[in-house]
Amino acid sequence: MNVSTSLKVRLPALVLVSEVVMIVLYAVFVTYDDNANAKLQNNKTNPMENSMYRDYPFFADVQVMIFIGFGCLLAFFRFYGFSGMVFNFLTATFAIQWAILMQGFFQFYYDGKIHLGVINLLNAEFACAVVLISFGAVLGKTSPVQLLVMALLEISFFSLTEWAVLKYIRINDAGGTILIHLFACYFGLGVTFVLYRPSLNEGHCKEITSYHSDILSVMGTLFLWVFWPSFNSALTFKGDAQHRAILHTFIGLSSSTITTFALSALFNKRGKLTMADIQNVTLAGGVTVGASVDMMISPVAAYALGIMGCTACFFGYKYLTPFLARHMRIQDQCGIHNLHGLTGLISSAAGICAILLATEETYGPSMYQIFSHRAPPEGDPKLLELQRLIPGLKPGLGRTAQEQALFQVAAVFSTIAASAVGGLLTGLVMKLPFMASPSDQDCFDDELFFDMPSDFDSVEVLKTPISYDEKIQMSSMNTKVDTLRQSL
Amino acid sequence: MNVSTSLKVRLPALVLVSEVVMIVLYAVFVTYDDNANAKLQNNKTNPMENSMYRDYPFFADVQVMIFIGFGCLLAFFRFYGFSGMVFNFLTATFAIQWAILMQGFFQFYYDGKIHLGVINLLNAEFACAVVLISFGAVLGKTSPVQLLVMALLEISFFSLTEWAVLKYIRINDAGGTILIHLFACYFGLGVTFVLYRPSLNEGHCKEITSYHSDILSVMGTLFLWVFWPSFNSALTFKGDAQHRAILHTFIGLSSSTITTFALSALFNKRGKLTMADIQNVTLAGGVTVGASVDMMISPVAAYALGIMGCTACFFGYKYLTPFLARHMRIQDQCGIHNLHGLTGLISSAAGICAILLATEETYGPSMYQIFSHRAPPEGDPKLLELQRLIPGLKPGLGRTAQEQALFQVAAVFSTIAASAVGGLLTGLVMKLPFMASPSDQDCFDDELFFDMPSDFDSVEVLKTPISYDEKIQMSSMNTKVDTLRQSL
Amino acid sequence: MNVSTSLKVRLPALVLVSEVVMIVLYAVFVTYDDNANAKLQNNKTNPMENSMYRDYPFFADVQVMIFIGFGCLLAFFRFYGFSGMVFNFLTATFAIQWAILMQGFFQFYYDGKIHLGVINLLNAEFACAVVLISFGAVLGKTSPVQLLVMALLEISFFSLTEWAVLKYIRINDAGGTILIHLFACYFGLGVTFVLYRPSLNEGHCKEITSYHSDILSVMGTLFLWVFWPSFNSALTFKGDAQHRAILHTFIGLSSSTITTFALSALFNKRGKLTMADIQNVTLAGGVTVGASVDMMISPVAAYALGIMGCTACFFGYKYLTPFLARHMRIQDQCGIHNLHGLTGLISSAAGICAILLATEETYGPSMYQIFSHRAPPEGDPKLLELQRLIPGLKPGLGRTAQEQALFQVAAVFSTIAASAVGGLLTGLVMKLPFMASPSDQDCFDDELFFDMPSDFDSVEVLKTPISYDEKIQMSSMNTKVDTLRQSL
Repeated sequence: MNVSTSLKVRLPALVLVSEVVMIVLYAVFVTYDDNANAKLQNNKTNPMENSMYRDYPFFADVQVMIFIGFGCLLAFFRFYGFSGMVFNFLTATFAIQWAILMQGFFQFYYDGKIHLGVINLLNAEFACAVVLISFGAVLGKTSPVQLLVMALLEISFFSLTEWAVLKYIRINDAGGTILIHLFACYFGLGVTFVLYRPSLNEGHCKEITSYHSDILSVMGTLFLWVFWPSFNSALTFKGDAQHRAILHTFIGLSSSTITTFALSALFNKRGKLTMADIQNVTLAGGVTVGASVDMMISPVAAYALGIMGCTACFFGYKYLTPFLARHMRIQDQCGIHNLHGLTGLISSAAGICAILLATEETYGPSMYQIFSHRAPPEGDPKLLELQRLIPGLKPGLGRTAQEQALFQVAAVFSTIAASAVGGLLTGLVMKLPFMASPSDQDCFDDELFFDMPSDFDSVEVLKTPISYDEKIQMSSMNTKVDTLRQSL
Repeated sequence: MNVSTSLKVRLPALVLVSEVVMIVLYAVFVTYDDNANAKLQNNKTNPMENSMYRDYPFFADVQVMIFIGFGCLLAFFRFYGFSGMVFNFLTATFAIQWAILMQGFFQFYYDGKIHLGVINLLNAEFACAVVLISFGAVLGKTSPVQLLVMALLEISFFSLTEWAVLKYIRINDAGGTILIHLFACYFGLGVTFVLYRPSLNEGHCKEITSYHSDILSVMGTLFLWVFWPSFNSALTFKGDAQHRAILHTFIGLSSSTITTFALSALFNKRGKLTMADIQNVTLAGGVTVGASVDMMISPVAAYALGIMGCTACFFGYKYLTPFLARHMRIQDQCGIHNLHGLTGLISSAAGICAILLATEETYGPSMYQIFSHRAPPEGDPKLLELQRLIPGLKPGLGRTAQEQALFQVAAVFSTIAASAVGGLLTGLVMKLPFMASPSDQDCFDDELFFDMPSDFDSVEVLKTPISYDEKIQMSSMNTKVDTLRQSL
Repeated sequence: MNVSTSLKVRLPALVLVSEVVMIVLYAVFVTYDDNANAKLQNNKTNPMENSMYRDYPFFADVQVMIFIGFGCLLAFFRFYGFSGMVFNFLTATFAIQWAILMQGFFQFYYDGKIHLGVINLLNAEFACAVVLISFGAVLGKTSPVQLLVMALLEISFFSLTEWAVLKYIRINDAGGTILIHLFACYFGLGVTFVLYRPSLNEGHCKEITSYHSDILSVMGTLFLWVFWPSFNSALTFKGDAQHRAILHTFIGLSSSTITTFALSALFNKRGKLTMADIQNVTLAGGVTVGASVDMMISPVAAYALGIMGCTACFFGYKYLTPFLARHMRIQDQCGIHNLHGLTGLISSAAGICAILLATEETYGPSMYQIFSHRAPPEGDPKLLELQRLIPGLKPGLGRTAQEQALFQVAAVFSTIAASAVGGLLTGLVMKLPFMASPSDQDCFDDELFFDMPSDFDSVEVLKTPISYDEKIQMSSMNTKVDTLRQSL
């Protein structure tokens, strides 16, 4: 069956319908939050204390990660650089617009309106990161129409799950390990399970990198690496908690990076380094410190977590990803299960340990701020006492460490379950016939969805003799000609 | 006529003369502003309240846009990547140095000195953006000598116009729509009108992109996209106004981006995406929200403005740019009239609407801060009353909304007129014979002004069979050899 | 002798041993500093006054410089892009981890612990910059094992020197001219002197750039350029001193940049621009303003310093680097002696002049803050008087300007001596046989240490006919085939 993959009608139709819906919803529901509303400013307002000044620097850093970091990282295929970078751009902008609405309804809705400030944009970028991580599982095998549908559904499932977990289970998850990385990972695996393409298990001739695409991808890694401390600390409490989040993320990434180099050389047949490891595994530490990133885990624990996450991630790429593809119909293109799933599980476990070990001796009274659900509930006399020490401390649920740990476990399992189910359902929708899904042969090829510059053909040509048969290189043509000349 | 394009004498002479002039002017006129002057610090100074902490983060973001965003974006030609990126670098640094002096005389001059702080640098980067936008109109067709001359003259014309508009017409233009985008656009069109090259209307064989140059250019777009909220909000009032500027810019860019993808696919013959659209049209929303970016226009208005600007820009590229080139002698190389002119006009109109619709009901008393010219004049009792509500409110001109709207209209027309005339005159200077202007044939070619690495030749060679005759590809050589072998 | 360069055992062994050592040291010695310690927060703590908010923005900017700026800049060789970018990544992360410990012991150690905050990370990035600058001297000629050993030893030598200079000589060096640039330069020259490879003095066939590697390298330059003001101002006093540091750095870089273009065209045979100049010499101004960057030197002095540094650096590349290589066994691959050594010496001299010229008339009482060693010592009645004007002024050493100038001179010479000796010793260690040092022939080639994508071969092939014999190009094959056909 030769299904058309022209975007001529489908993409514009989907975008324009979405835009009409969004315009209506924005018009009816979205207004400014108090910090962005001119009317609420008065002679007691200090403009420099506007919440924007606390949120915008972190938002800007996360923007770089989303658009440039992910964009470059996903451009690692030799013939799929346009698509990797540009579909990331499209999917991200679309997901953010939708997330502002969905998260708005669930988290920023009162007085009949969604109240919009930079903090909403920051939350929406986190939701967007979820979609982009899942995108990694199906990179090269999906049309932009499918990606927009995925963004639409995933943001919806995510916002619902996020709301339910935050409202009913109530967890500590400053770096978004559970809600972002685990959700994104298992959602993506659900989608790719449904979109299984048996013929691709043998590998695809275009599933290769080039010298320049590898460098571009490393640049993406470096942008993610550099700004990851901002990502992990963007939504923590201000002050010392955010300070620790930065320290832990940086340390975790550092130890994870040098471990990657060691493992990459150690398990390479010829003792050389593999670019794919450097592009992906180096980042594992950032995820692994996530769940306990704002806690007093001590710097050495962040260091150790970086090593552990990196090791799990490395062996995941080496053994688990091929296993999942061959035996479980899960083709995880960028190995998100290694970089976000395995590390997420380790991070969740570490977070639970940190919760169990947390004492007032280590944290002082601000323990009840970081572990806010352990704070005494409204009316408890201990709350008043604590509020004298920590002004503005909010009443909690009076949970013990053990109770909180159990809730964390519950959150992990319910997030995984919700995301996997959501991913499977979304995969089914993406498999519908009018989604412009590329044929197996056209996967990993920019030409399917882009007008290509004229040198792209030559790249294709160059590829043929080299990737299929490395012996027959262009130089051999010289020999051929010489042979011919002699035989004449 | 075979005019020499060697830079050996001309470029150094121009630079060194400029440097001598600038050293003298800096020595005589430039001193530190109060926030950078050690002598003015005393026991009442709080170092953390130094103005630099408010301005520098935005300055740094704009730096990235100017040097990396523009630099990569302008490197989209296959054989003109060095020039696009490096001439941008040269022109920008030169323009900023000169702008510090020119804007200094017009805006920061008192007690016989130009007072220099980070805020001056920020203003100078905006002036520099004006030059770089105009550069887009003549990209590939000008020597660095011409570009420096353009920078010198354009900064002078711009500073004068800016001063006149801000001092005598007095407008609301937080995002710089009128003074930056419209000025830059019509100045650039004026220059390119004078530098008209009839033979290039048929297209130039080097006026093409490559796979890598397209990716580089998209990276430039992404850097501009990511930091545009900082650009549009850098010079607003602090607090809620700056907060709204960030929100509107982000929303406008987002809606503009997804609309671009829809239009690009819809109007492509084969239903594919076109990289040039993604590189340029996605940014239209950032310009379009500019003139009203700090006002209470509501988020949905920013969303709609993004779509409108993007649509105008898209059709401008499709129909207007070719029309201008063929029938009006205006060869607008990067289509700045679409991205900055059309969107600037829409933005100005939207700004005027927002001014007409602004009421105290929506803004509260801070209306007189945002629309500062509507504030009561010195001595008016209402001013005192307002100053109790908004401490530090400056006396205004007591304009009504309608009056302000008329002044905005006046500013639009006078800016366009001034810039067009300035551009024409500058074009005439740039056309003088000793400017090392490239011949038609040497346009869009790095080799004219750079020592090239040895693989640049091979790129040229590769280009020949492919861009002129896509059928004759390198693979055909294999066939030839095989045919020969068989025929033997 | 055919020494193995496999990293299979050596790199993992070195990394894992280091990790074990570091885990032990981190576990025993590293704890949080007061601003990152939850226990020390109480009802008098304002979270927004956490030191992190003052340091993190500058830290993030320096991160971009270290990982992306340096990474891209060092990727300028055509066949050494992976290595340039990735070894920079490895070396930087390794150096930072070690610097946190070493600087921790020397500067942040009290109560038996190293106290860790973002300020330590910032200091560690500066130490890391030292290693990366020295790396420039031996780029392309060292294995990652050698680089890690160099990082380990250089960080140790550097931390010791830094501590000795700061504690015993006590200098003004806000931009790190003496301790960072001069140390890094002469350490690197020491190393490369020991690692001298006579055969490379004739040039190496792979010691060339490509079109794309040149563009990548310029991007690195631009990232360094854009964030250099943050680098030079990160460790100054807050307030007006930091403000001036930003201004001076920006102005110095600007004048340095346009001077580079002038000199590049002037001294090029055909009046063209040379990319290597633009990649390196443009940055000279940033170093040259370093030693006096926070002083009241006036903007024009920064402008002039930019021109002077750039000129020295340019002629250094042109004449001194070849001379050093040919006659002094110093093969300075990236010319760090021009960009960091010559400029560092000029900068030190300028700093000394600025110290000698500093008067209370120019600086007001805050002179004793900037030149802190000139402040009256503890117990001096003038100190109390000054402390009323400048709250928090710390007692100094009561030095005169002349005394301080002499100490600066002493610091310059002792830093150069310490670094040169350290570099020589480190070079001897790096020359040990089991360091996987590449053979002369394998220098500047990614293939030695990386699994390469399949198109890298083709790049090699392309190189052969073009770089060795530009006349025999691929197009000539067409001719050959045609000739053959005719001869049949």
